[in-house]
Amino acid sequence: MLLSKLFIPVTKDLPSEAKIKSHQLMLRTGMIRQSSAGIYSWLPLGFKIMKKIEKIVREEQNNIGAQEMLMPTIQPADIWKESGRYDDYGEEMLRISDRQKREMLYGPTNEEQITEIFRSSVKSYKLLPQIFYHIQWKFRDELRPRFGVMRCREFFMKDAYSFDLTEKDAVISYNKMFFAYLKTFQRLGLKSIPMKADTGPIGGDLSHEFVILAETGESKIFADKRIFEVPINDYKNNEISLKKMRNDFMEFYAVTDDKFNADTFNQNVNKENQIQTKGIEVGHIFYFGDKYSKPMNCSVDTSDGKKTFVKMGSYGIGVSRLVGAIIEAKYNNEKMKWPKSIAPFEAVVIPALNKNDDSNLIRAKKSLR
Amino acid sequence: MLLSKLFIPVTKDLPSEAKIKSHQLMLRTGMIRQSSAGIYSWLPLGFKIMKKIEKIVREEQNNIGAQEMLMPTIQPADIWKESGRYDDYGEEMLRISDRQKREMLYGPTNEEQITEIFRSSVKSYKLLPQIFYHIQWKFRDELRPRFGVMRCREFFMKDAYSFDLTEKDAVISYNKMFFAYLKTFQRLGLKSIPMKADTGPIGGDLSHEFVILAETGESKIFADKRIFEVPINDYKNNEISLKKMRNDFMEFYAVTDDKFNADTFNQNVNKENQIQTKGIEVGHIFYFGDKYSKPMNCSVDTSDGKKTFVKMGSYGIGVSRLVGAIIEAKYNNEKMKWPKSIAPFEAVVIPALNKNDDSNLIRAKKSLR
Repeated sequence: MLLSKLFIPVTKDLPSEAKIKSHQLMLRTGMIRQSSAGIYSWLPLGFKIMKKIEKIVREEQNNIGAQEMLMPTIQPADIWKESGRYDDYGEEMLRISDRQKREMLYGPTNEEQITEIFRSSVKSYKLLPQIFYHIQWKFRDELRPRFGVMRCREFFMKDAYSFDLTEKDAVISYNKMFFAYLKTFQRLGLKSIPMKADTGPIGGDLSHEFVILAETGESKIFADKRIFEVPINDYKNNEISLKKMRNDFMEFYAVTDDKFNADTFNQNVNKENQIQTKGIEVGHIFYFGDKYSKPMNCSVDTSDGKKTFVKMGSYGIGVSRLVGAIIEAKYNNEKMKWPKSIAPFEAVVIPALNKNDDSNLIRAKKSLR
Repeated sequence: MLLSKLFIPVTKDLPSEAKIKSHQLMLRTGMIRQSSAGIYSWLPLGFKIMKKIEKIVREEQNNIGAQEMLMPTIQPADIWKESGRYDDYGEEMLRISDRQKREMLYGPTNEEQITEIFRSSVKSYKLLPQIFYHIQWKFRDELRPRFGVMRCREFFMKDAYSFDLTEKDAVISYNKMFFAYLKTFQRLGLKSIPMKADTGPIGGDLSHEFVILAETGESKIFADKRIFEVPINDYKNNEISLKKMRNDFMEFYAVTDDKFNADTFNQNVNKENQIQTKGIEVGHIFYFGDKYSKPMNCSVDTSDGKKTFVKMGSYGIGVSRLVGAIIEAKYNNEKMKWPKSIAPFEAVVIPALNKNDDSNLIRAKKSLR
């Protein structure tokens, strides 16, 4: 493919609602085009970058033994009524009536669907633990979609779900995913901070959000900067090492402004280690025990002949959101900067051409294919 | 990943509507699970196979210079009103009203959307020709979804769109895609027959469907068996060679039953070359000129300062459908047979194990990861 034939429709006309850099730059450089409010087409340049991010996310999920599958975008309302979330979810859920007048919806997340698959297929503790994931389009009918791909309606997300026999086992799965997330963001060239978080509408007992630093971020961050020195690559994918890893991270103060307390910050963090900045949430992990397995009756036989509800967690990374978030974290002097791992092209330096020798040009063209 | 940990929930319980082999086998071997009528989850085994098919489809699109992008699943009704298809499409279109009461729909195809992107981005003939494609979920609200993934409601499809200045150029793009389709099906281990076809609801002047042979196929096929001897690999990706290729294929009689005429068949094909069998449509290509560009006002400036509506074609391959179609074409003795190019695993032969030497087992486990 010659660069001159690449479809990269740059534009200078920006809509007034494009207020943040990533939104402006993605439109200006022809990475995306708005289809309707909060819904975008990914043009070749943006698509290439998103695909590279997806690949890294996938590889790190596979590395911890998660199995990939693909659930559909359109779900039946029934399973959401079973879990009790159908009414709770409100207007953000895109509700659809099909030609037979069945109640359907465009999935905003997949806890119910994976629980339905699991309960119909797995009867014995012997198949546990299991972690499944898929990378699929989701829809949340935001009242005011904004910030381009950062808060859009149709978005591309990796969501994983863990199934364990006991809470103790479930925490092992949780820690594996914690590890996979740190590795993923590291490979994407990002500094991420795992922070204790509220569980929100997913519910549950234990939750961390992963925040990357960006001056234009939506949340204020107060942290001990030594958290960046935790040696991610020194931990191993086993129970003890991963437990230590989570503890090592949790030793350092790191909160968003809703949990910030100046006194606690000053007591716990020396002045020279304090950082105040802004961040963007790019991942969120939850442990919620039997919150879905109990109402949906998803149980397995235990080794002593009883039944127990499986203990579940869910784990999301916003793949399309990351494209915008990386621009926010890295842009400089009105230019986007891509870590090499996800750069759409490799740079090709073409030495001055000799009219009678186009081998350099041929080489350059080849590498752009 | 150990085989014992792979999530492959085999089942013996088959729903009564699973009437054809591919549907039965895919359910029985835990490749898919029905979510609701005509909507399936792709479990790890089915997912692996579908992804391998997708990769081959993608590579052959890239080989002819098509550029990948990704359009959203949810489209605004407006563009379908511009083309005139919003009312025509009937109940097969899944119509959606969002929280702002805007009319939206789950795209069954993307002619309107790509035309909207093109008209807003390309003004000059200099950027032509262009071929774009995406591999995205589509929805057709079939009245009676059946045959598993072969006629489902939510399906995974590669659709490509070509843009040219003249009809002559457009036929070159058409022939490139014709070539890419033959290569794709060949790599999938399939014997495909390109057949002149009606253009149906897409409209237009020129169309071929690609049919693979399967005894359980939906359409009867009458053909000259010498069509399988056309040497696909001898053609080159250039105008003259590709024109010759299409002509070479068109020399041989091949029709579905709606166009069958016994006299013509006997006149044109010697008895020993006649085959009567059944087939499954796995691809369809269309040239339709300015059918969409004219009502949607998608034009470019020509070299002599005038404007002309671009000449378009569209090109579909049912990626999820192919999984079922390949089973139908290949199954034997109640067993699925996968061409090596898309087999979910490589077979591993484990010689008899010596209790004191588990190196073979270790080797086998490694290769299954």
